[in-house]
Amino acid sequence: MSLLRQDVTTNDWVIFAPERARRPHEWKQAAEESEASLPSEGKCPFCQGNEQMTSPEIYALRGGTAPNTPGWRVRVIPNKFPALRIEEETRRQEEGPTFRHMGGCGAHEVIVESPDHDLFLAQQPVEQVEFLLRALQLRFNDLMRDSRFQTIVIFKNHGEQAGTSLRHPHCQLIAMPVVPQLLRLKHHVATDFFDQTGSCLYCVLLHEELLARERVVAENDHYAAISPYASHVPFEIWILPKRHNSSFGRVEASLFRPLAELLKTVLQKLFCGLDNPAFNLILNTAPRGDEGKQYFLWHIQILPRLTTQAGFEMGSGMSINTTLPEDAAEYLRQAESF
Amino acid sequence: MSLLRQDVTTNDWVIFAPERARRPHEWKQAAEESEASLPSEGKCPFCQGNEQMTSPEIYALRGGTAPNTPGWRVRVIPNKFPALRIEEETRRQEEGPTFRHMGGCGAHEVIVESPDHDLFLAQQPVEQVEFLLRALQLRFNDLMRDSRFQTIVIFKNHGEQAGTSLRHPHCQLIAMPVVPQLLRLKHHVATDFFDQTGSCLYCVLLHEELLARERVVAENDHYAAISPYASHVPFEIWILPKRHNSSFGRVEASLFRPLAELLKTVLQKLFCGLDNPAFNLILNTAPRGDEGKQYFLWHIQILPRLTTQAGFEMGSGMSINTTLPEDAAEYLRQAESF
Repeated sequence: MSLLRQDVTTNDWVIFAPERARRPHEWKQAAEESEASLPSEGKCPFCQGNEQMTSPEIYALRGGTAPNTPGWRVRVIPNKFPALRIEEETRRQEEGPTFRHMGGCGAHEVIVESPDHDLFLAQQPVEQVEFLLRALQLRFNDLMRDSRFQTIVIFKNHGEQAGTSLRHPHCQLIAMPVVPQLLRLKHHVATDFFDQTGSCLYCVLLHEELLARERVVAENDHYAAISPYASHVPFEIWILPKRHNSSFGRVEASLFRPLAELLKTVLQKLFCGLDNPAFNLILNTAPRGDEGKQYFLWHIQILPRLTTQAGFEMGSGMSINTTLPEDAAEYLRQAESF
Repeated sequence: MSLLRQDVTTNDWVIFAPERARRPHEWKQAAEESEASLPSEGKCPFCQGNEQMTSPEIYALRGGTAPNTPGWRVRVIPNKFPALRIEEETRRQEEGPTFRHMGGCGAHEVIVESPDHDLFLAQQPVEQVEFLLRALQLRFNDLMRDSRFQTIVIFKNHGEQAGTSLRHPHCQLIAMPVVPQLLRLKHHVATDFFDQTGSCLYCVLLHEELLARERVVAENDHYAAISPYASHVPFEIWILPKRHNSSFGRVEASLFRPLAELLKTVLQKLFCGLDNPAFNLILNTAPRGDEGKQYFLWHIQILPRLTTQAGFEMGSGMSINTTLPEDAAEYLRQAESF
């Protein structure tokens, strides 16, 4: 059972997924378990040969072998403990002026990045990174055919401090029947900028960063990686396309190879420069209905988890960053890649 | 040097405090240091007898002894590594259409909760909790006399996972020349509700929770502690006053004792029921100019850090909560207090 409840003080929705949970009294023991619960190789449900340990695959890039058998390059399966489920209702209900809820309708998929248990994305050959990006777009566009889904969040948690519970490299995707207020805010701000200037805020931002150069980490003909001027955390990186496009679902096939190249370079620099830090990767893209608009630019955001969010950040939503992005970018520009 | 830069994609400001930082190459070693950097008793700058280890005190509740000597109950000092500083400029500057910054003008204070290094707030006598709350209000109102400050965030980090670096129990306060977008959003939503219904959203929410009863953790004549209907994290608790008041700065003197009693009860239940979990405590109060308004209710928010925020939460701003607040409240109602 999953459920969405609206926080009426912010209008945001909270996903309740009690099946993913411990019972209240079990929280006491939780701390010791976390490390032990990471399965070692051989028992990993994401490894080649263990396909029967997962639900049947939703999609796999394979060279002619049968579904749910070895021989794949990228494999997409349902999350074992889904936050949202395709069979739930989307009808909203009110139990009172401040109690609004709806069924936890959505999808929650795991994209296994490669058959290799120990090879991080930064270490993969560039074509494997490209296969992954193509698989993400394929799932994105397939799920967007379901008109109940308003937003799809694609993300990756790398390292325990970033919330991973399984070591085998994987991304996740959650399709939701609502639009997060943060995404609404970003669209509102970008629309306002467009109305005042006639330009896409993100394209202008990227143009300014490419002129200033001091926060550029790496770039190629089609994409740039920057430490943004107002980075929220040390070594935050955004990868933005140089040509306007608000939706990841509309990235042209020919633009996946240069994206894979730049993403690999950036992840290598983080890996070498910061000794394989934990990080979260998030793909920002327009929600349903805004895919063709001129005032949002899809982009990848990488947030290394080098510091702990504390009460100030959680209470205000603001950030205290101890590293200037100019310093972070200069350091990463010089960091090795392999 | 501190600095504020605006994230033009959300209009929120990021505080840059590079003096609090490691140099980029030092991030590599950072992980091992964190535990070692917590000083043991005797060397703790917050302990009685070590007053000379801190900057001169801003305020102390004492029984007639001289400033910066022993004999105090609560002591307020400047943060050694302040995020913001009173002497910085507030003038905003533009270096281009997407690069806006201003001086990091503000205040960052530490409120040492008691002379005792090892006694957590939950374990203090109720009068000590009351002293702390009164000291917080005193500092709040004193800083609000400086018209440059728009918002004051009062918070507490308990436990390493919550971002504490010093064990000796303390709260912090940051006064800022800007208003966080999250607070603006909450005010906007509450104003909208007021315009539609003529009531304070938070008062209605509390009324509904007190009618439903299933998410009430504890209450007295003047305050109630609830696990809110749309809790963002397991065991989230809000303490709300039963009489409308948007500003913590305006809490009447007689209402501090019942607040101290309820806060102590709640912290005891968390301590006993969840084995002294890490948590953040945040005091939500109206920004400058909204103190007398009918559509916000000051309140305390307690966020236990039992789970790790991952990419989905960081990217969407939404939450996945594995524990229903009804279950959390029932468990905490039955948890011991001492």
